[in-house]
Amino acid sequence: MSLIVTGTIGIDTLHAPTGSAERVLGGSCSYFAAAASHLTPVRVVGAVGGDFPAEHAAILESFKGVCLKGLERRPASRTFAWGGRYLDDMNRRETLFTELGVLEEAPPKVPAAYQDSQFVFLCNTHPSVQMDLLRQFPRRALAVCDTMDLWINVARLELLALFHEVDGVVLNDQEAMQLTEARNAVSAGRAILDLGPKFVVVKKGEHGAILVHRDGVATLPAYPADASHVVDPTGAGDTFAGGLMAHVALTGKGDFATLQGGMAWGTVMASFTIEAFGLDRLRTLDAAQIAERMKRFQTAARVG
Amino acid sequence: MSLIVTGTIGIDTLHAPTGSAERVLGGSCSYFAAAASHLTPVRVVGAVGGDFPAEHAAILESFKGVCLKGLERRPASRTFAWGGRYLDDMNRRETLFTELGVLEEAPPKVPAAYQDSQFVFLCNTHPSVQMDLLRQFPRRALAVCDTMDLWINVARLELLALFHEVDGVVLNDQEAMQLTEARNAVSAGRAILDLGPKFVVVKKGEHGAILVHRDGVATLPAYPADASHVVDPTGAGDTFAGGLMAHVALTGKGDFATLQGGMAWGTVMASFTIEAFGLDRLRTLDAAQIAERMKRFQTAARVG
Repeated sequence: MSLIVTGTIGIDTLHAPTGSAERVLGGSCSYFAAAASHLTPVRVVGAVGGDFPAEHAAILESFKGVCLKGLERRPASRTFAWGGRYLDDMNRRETLFTELGVLEEAPPKVPAAYQDSQFVFLCNTHPSVQMDLLRQFPRRALAVCDTMDLWINVARLELLALFHEVDGVVLNDQEAMQLTEARNAVSAGRAILDLGPKFVVVKKGEHGAILVHRDGVATLPAYPADASHVVDPTGAGDTFAGGLMAHVALTGKGDFATLQGGMAWGTVMASFTIEAFGLDRLRTLDAAQIAERMKRFQTAARVG
Repeated sequence: MSLIVTGTIGIDTLHAPTGSAERVLGGSCSYFAAAASHLTPVRVVGAVGGDFPAEHAAILESFKGVCLKGLERRPASRTFAWGGRYLDDMNRRETLFTELGVLEEAPPKVPAAYQDSQFVFLCNTHPSVQMDLLRQFPRRALAVCDTMDLWINVARLELLALFHEVDGVVLNDQEAMQLTEARNAVSAGRAILDLGPKFVVVKKGEHGAILVHRDGVATLPAYPADASHVVDPTGAGDTFAGGLMAHVALTGKGDFATLQGGMAWGTVMASFTIEAFGLDRLRTLDAAQIAERMKRFQTAARVG
């Protein structure tokens, strides 16, 4: 079943207590697609500028399951670039710079060949852009959007309109509580269900994720990684969403049990992403390593 | 198999956004014993003063599985009393007052009839007192201690000596990281293993708990409660330990799989404690409610 992701393909500069990485391939769409492609083919809709390095394009192309027909190259524009620094415990980060580049221009067009896409994930961007992209998938079976605190603050009405159109929402716990003024993640999820979607996945970083669905609640811890294996948390949430949606697309269903299973795949994929800067760990990953990590996670997170 | 708990039986005054409770029965030992008693008989070693209300004694006696032969009444002394206020998100609290009372005197004596106890839990108190109590159980099969930031700061050497004698340690994530200077709960647990114990349970409050054992790592989320059901978090950690140790004592084993199973029982028992002030919810609990909650938890926390 065809999976598609829309979002940012960018150039990241990262500083962490574990080291630094200068102008590496980043962006939510890149992380999502790289992770999902290990499980199922994934189509990409995004835009980059004339400065987008050939080696970054080569990295995207190296993921066999990633289809780049929807990647727009705009020679006169600049690629989105972001710089960030992680603080000591790696749970907090500060933004050093943001160069919007192509994100200030018209959103990318969805190629005609992509309009039959069934499973749609809209990475975080202005909710009006997400809505515009969503409408270009008339045959969608299931659509899910991410968002962030910025849009909750400056584009709340557009965000609420989007929530009415999607099947699911993925967002961080702090954002979910900010949006709903709920006191915990479960209650925030329930409050968001009242805004339209059938399910909400509340991401809690190193503490896992909670699925609040019209048919039930699921909760999953993160993979219990040693601190020495946590090199760069960038993209963990997007990778989680990629693993989750890949499982949904593979299964062809969006019911509670499928989403619960998808959360485990998302958790496993995210556990790899954080082991290296940028997409480095996802590039060297193979099916046997994924299967082994899933087995370990199932053992570690077994209930009784 | 005989389970015993040593610790504080106190009088709590609690303030929370959900309401207040004046001079209710509290103390780590009370919470532990009340929770454990729903699963297996439990012996109590603790001391109270002449001011200990008859109705609080009646509450302890109302838990059929709790044996109070080791409860010392000291007419000329005062019972430990504590007052605290929970802040808005219920994850942080401030201490309003602490009256040590009997805790400033000699620790309670372990009755001769208790010296054959096999499964020993030492609730948080000065590690020298814990050590003294531990030595009074020569036939113990498994001993576990709790601790807190205060002792890490002012009695580190005594704490390290205790860690050499016990089989397991239970403590909060912040305390575990403070003690070891590790960057996350898993690494903190591993660092504590190097200090002597066979296993460490790192409690993360609403984010669950992680077991770091010489034979593996287990991770479990908390029960996904609606915020409206969280009335008073006091005693959640002690209740968790009570459920965990009750399962260990029932099983008669302290291996990785048994402790992993015990964490689920601890999680379920804690999910009840927080639903009311003090021990109120544990008093009305029955076996059918516990079994149903466990079933719900297993469904919610299933991996894939």
